[in-house]
Amino acid sequence: MLKDGERIDQLYSQNVQIIQSTDVFSFSLDAVLLANFSRVGGRDRQVVDLCAGNGAVGLFLTGKTNASITMIEIQPRLADMAQRSIELNYLTEQVKVINADLKDSFEYLKKDSVDVVTVNPPYFVNYDDSQKNPNPHLAIARHELATNLETVVKTSSGLLKMNAKFFCVFRPDRLTDLLVTMRTNRIEPKRIQFVRSREGDNANMVLVEGIKDGKLNGVKVIEDIIVYDGDHYSKTVKKMLYGEQ
Amino acid sequence: MLKDGERIDQLYSQNVQIIQSTDVFSFSLDAVLLANFSRVGGRDRQVVDLCAGNGAVGLFLTGKTNASITMIEIQPRLADMAQRSIELNYLTEQVKVINADLKDSFEYLKKDSVDVVTVNPPYFVNYDDSQKNPNPHLAIARHELATNLETVVKTSSGLLKMNAKFFCVFRPDRLTDLLVTMRTNRIEPKRIQFVRSREGDNANMVLVEGIKDGKLNGVKVIEDIIVYDGDHYSKTVKKMLYGEQ
Repeated sequence: MLKDGERIDQLYSQNVQIIQSTDVFSFSLDAVLLANFSRVGGRDRQVVDLCAGNGAVGLFLTGKTNASITMIEIQPRLADMAQRSIELNYLTEQVKVINADLKDSFEYLKKDSVDVVTVNPPYFVNYDDSQKNPNPHLAIARHELATNLETVVKTSSGLLKMNAKFFCVFRPDRLTDLLVTMRTNRIEPKRIQFVRSREGDNANMVLVEGIKDGKLNGVKVIEDIIVYDGDHYSKTVKKMLYGEQ
Repeated sequence: MLKDGERIDQLYSQNVQIIQSTDVFSFSLDAVLLANFSRVGGRDRQVVDLCAGNGAVGLFLTGKTNASITMIEIQPRLADMAQRSIELNYLTEQVKVINADLKDSFEYLKKDSVDVVTVNPPYFVNYDDSQKNPNPHLAIARHELATNLETVVKTSSGLLKMNAKFFCVFRPDRLTDLLVTMRTNRIEPKRIQFVRSREGDNANMVLVEGIKDGKLNGVKVIEDIIVYDGDHYSKTVKKMLYGEQ
């Protein structure tokens, strides 16, 4: 089941196992935070995770919902890892992965048909002179080489039903890009949570919830997440990783 | 010097006295936070405070800078209070107040001439059905009756030199409106600080710094301000109000 250089990591809080590879892609705290932040209700039927990577977010969400979860991932190697993780967790009935460029989502999924979109997009603008990771798998995951924020948000908006929900993790550095792009594409930001390594640090991640065709404004900036408390993960993050203590 | 119903309050940390009136207008914590958040350097020559109210922000800034400070306030009664506060503090050489609609700023001030704009604009969109304060002075200060965010930001941008700074206090509820309007008007958001009544509460104010014609993105979301610690002001806010303890 495992290919060269791969290992299996467990997210204890969700009792899910994920095939990882340091050389190719390993999920990081972003994925755990995004899955945790996403509100997927009992009525939701169709969930789509874009920029799915090795499938961590979609797999984590199975702990929260019985909805069908469709992952879209452009890199064949990562989509393959995700597929094997789905099988490893006996989740083939609930979760599937499509190896495609997200801009082609509508070849596989109907417009205005999805209840929840989650996405952990590449964070870095692809400036000509910006340093990229020499590992192409990681470069594509982190830099806007294969897609960009505008395409991600536009595609999400196209997939979502009216009043359906969008959840995204991004960098505060590009908060304006994110909010502007969401509003322009009819996904109105409604809930924002900042993540800081330590109390008092500048935020290094931001989680944003939006509603398609939501009424303008009404943003709630909820409690910060602090990742570390001294040398250890904070209680909040421990709970996300390991479940109730 | 005082008119009916007026009193003099002191901001101890800046050793400034302000004429206040419960019936007409009293500065609140917003003004103290905005003055504190605003970075006014030794090289800045021209500072403009829009929506100046009774002049609190501009008066507080005299503790930080020797620059000329021009306040613009549309309500004659408030502009008159501000003028008397300027005199009360012997600051007529440094601070002046113009009783005008801010959209007419360019009758008094040159375009692209200002180093710093500060503004505490009305927060509430003037929906036909929204409840307004029955006191017209307070209604104009709080609702977008006499101006609106678009006009405030556009005017600020027109006043500012290239690379000059804009500081604003607003409600997180309209964070998207604020960031979108800033970017549209060539003021790029660069530093954001959220204010919460208590640790763990949703933010109830947001402070934003922008740079005219600044490079896109590069937002820093700095440490939150927590206003109360138990039944008392937090240390941070005490310091703003009363100075070093």
